Amino acid sequence: MEYETPLFFRVMAYANEADRDVVDMVSGNPDWDPPAALREGLREYADLEPDAFQYPPSVGLRALREEIAARRGVDVEQVVITNGAGEANYLAMARALERDRGEEILLTDPVYPYYPGKTTMLGGRPAYVATDETGRLDPAAVREAASEDTAAIVVNSPNNPTGAVYPEKTIRELVTIAEAHDAILVSDEVYDHFDYAGAFSSALGIESNHRIVTNGFSKSMAITGLRVGYAVFPHHLVENARGRHMLVNVATTRPGQYAVLKALHETDPDYYERNRERLRERIDAFTEALEAAGAEYTRPEGSFYVMARFDGFPGTVENTFELIDEAGVAGMPGSGFGDSREDWLRFALVTPRVEEAADRLAGYLG
Amino acid sequence: MEYETPLFFRVMAYANEADRDVVDMVSGNPDWDPPAALREGLREYADLEPDAFQYPPSVGLRALREEIAARRGVDVEQVVITNGAGEANYLAMARALERDRGEEILLTDPVYPYYPGKTTMLGGRPAYVATDETGRLDPAAVREAASEDTAAIVVNSPNNPTGAVYPEKTIRELVTIAEAHDAILVSDEVYDHFDYAGAFSSALGIESNHRIVTNGFSKSMAITGLRVGYAVFPHHLVENARGRHMLVNVATTRPGQYAVLKALHETDPDYYERNRERLRERIDAFTEALEAAGAEYTRPEGSFYVMARFDGFPGTVENTFELIDEAGVAGMPGSGFGDSREDWLRFALVTPRVEEAADRLAGYLG
Repeated sequence: MEYETPLFFRVMAYANEADRDVVDMVSGNPDWDPPAALREGLREYADLEPDAFQYPPSVGLRALREEIAARRGVDVEQVVITNGAGEANYLAMARALERDRGEEILLTDPVYPYYPGKTTMLGGRPAYVATDETGRLDPAAVREAASEDTAAIVVNSPNNPTGAVYPEKTIRELVTIAEAHDAILVSDEVYDHFDYAGAFSSALGIESNHRIVTNGFSKSMAITGLRVGYAVFPHHLVENARGRHMLVNVATTRPGQYAVLKALHETDPDYYERNRERLRERIDAFTEALEAAGAEYTRPEGSFYVMARFDGFPGTVENTFELIDEAGVAGMPGSGFGDSREDWLRFALVTPRVEEAADRLAGYLG
Repeated sequence: MEYETPLFFRVMAYANEADRDVVDMVSGNPDWDPPAALREGLREYADLEPDAFQYPPSVGLRALREEIAARRGVDVEQVVITNGAGEANYLAMARALERDRGEEILLTDPVYPYYPGKTTMLGGRPAYVATDETGRLDPAAVREAASEDTAAIVVNSPNNPTGAVYPEKTIRELVTIAEAHDAILVSDEVYDHFDYAGAFSSALGIESNHRIVTNGFSKSMAITGLRVGYAVFPHHLVENARGRHMLVNVATTRPGQYAVLKALHETDPDYYERNRERLRERIDAFTEALEAAGAEYTRPEGSFYVMARFDGFPGTVENTFELIDEAGVAGMPGSGFGDSREDWLRFALVTPRVEEAADRLAGYLG
């Protein structure tokens, strides 16, 4: 088995080596501050006794699991703390495939590129259901694609890259489809704090033995480098996932868990609202400049990505490199997210220079 | 696929729930202090700019990889920073199996129980080569066991649980056997700083495209909870391992990497020597008390475990629980490490109360 170097890294490396100023809108790394209590948690941890530097429980610190369970309305036994949402998705997809109810994993197109990579690595077969042009997923299309061979349906709402937020009705129907095929709905909700219209609906709101919810603090607390996430499993699926987590990672880093717990306790809702407000302003500024430049674009309902299309300038890797060199703006080629968005580019709004970036794009392509 | 709850956790849980004082010698959690610079590294990290809280490179912070490469005499491109030595072993074993040169992984008996667990999870088949009563491995026995179906040979020196340190000649012959069968020697060297007679020999000392070395800072820096380890791959095997690391974990926690790098730069050899000296004293105290009690035992050349056997009291799970309740000493049943040590118990010397523990054992069993 061989794995390709992901496009993300090729584009980031190219942007870093460019011989000019480049506005970096490639990756989903927040540029805003983590909560003050998160920093304070790391400082506190540094002064603890030696036993606090040793293995936490493999499933995670009890107090952190309890805090998450209470917030999400689930039983603490269902919660496994993972090395970011990335490991949570890996465990969830592995769990679905290990049930031996099928080898196919239904994904959306466009797709977050780690999902097909994980599917293939785990011996599964990815299949795709097209979303509409705004990124919404029609459950009827999923129902049509699902079969006896479907092990899992993996969705991400709020969505990267489209910015779509699936309504409660969609999530409910996806759970029903998973149940009908004895499959698992894996609902990756890592952007749940970036829901601009209050339309987000968690799959945890629907009681079922056929859904796993994954999440993390990477985006909500602007700490993609700490690697603290979690998965919520139905009771009958959690034991095996705990086993795999232990055999792969033993446990999730303890200072990160400690700091996240403190930040959960001490960060008030204003912190999250300020981050949303900052992004709302960036979305407005970037999309207005795109509008003025005559580009097509998606206005995200959630997450922090904008997809844009420029006439006669498809979102290929070559064109992405050209924009870096000539316009000084680095985005991601739409082709990195599946066949349906080959004409598009994705821009992550993780820089205060979004308006400047849009002006540069307009100047070069307009 | 189902995984058993590891024996470690069952024993630890039983010891924690005991209604009496128990000397905990179950797990390999150091009870001594991490380096001062490690704590200082976490404090420094807490004050860095927001971009330092975001994804490190997936393979690890460049400066940490360079420091490790310089110390180990390898190329920086060969080094992948992992979520502890646990993930490093997982990646190494996965890489060996993915070469499609066989499905069998040769392990030693006694064995560190995570190895067979990882083997099975990865779709491989564990096979065992017996070591002698001191834990030494005879390369001739490995040569006899190896076949066309051997994908990897996994060894751990200094060894958990036996305390054996393999001489350079053994490591060299193991590499030769791996080469002869187009297999991979996976050499887990996480106890390399706990080598009491200076007899340790790293597999990195032998040039070969057929060996992967895994290691970590969990034991040497007394930070099992931070989860920072690494693997050194031959050039032609590293790309795929990087891919799997990214698809499973995205990256290894950044504050941990930052703090370990600072500790590598600023911790002088005295720190490691003090830890060895403390353990030498504990080994002396514990084994002398075992001797006085008429028990059989192994005196470790490396790592920090002592195996002991008491007449008429085999190292079963039931007897381990009895010792917790009646003697107030918690060890690990030898049966947890394979068939050959079913009569034995393993004690981790991670408490200053080793002499008291041996006296308690003598009092109850003598």
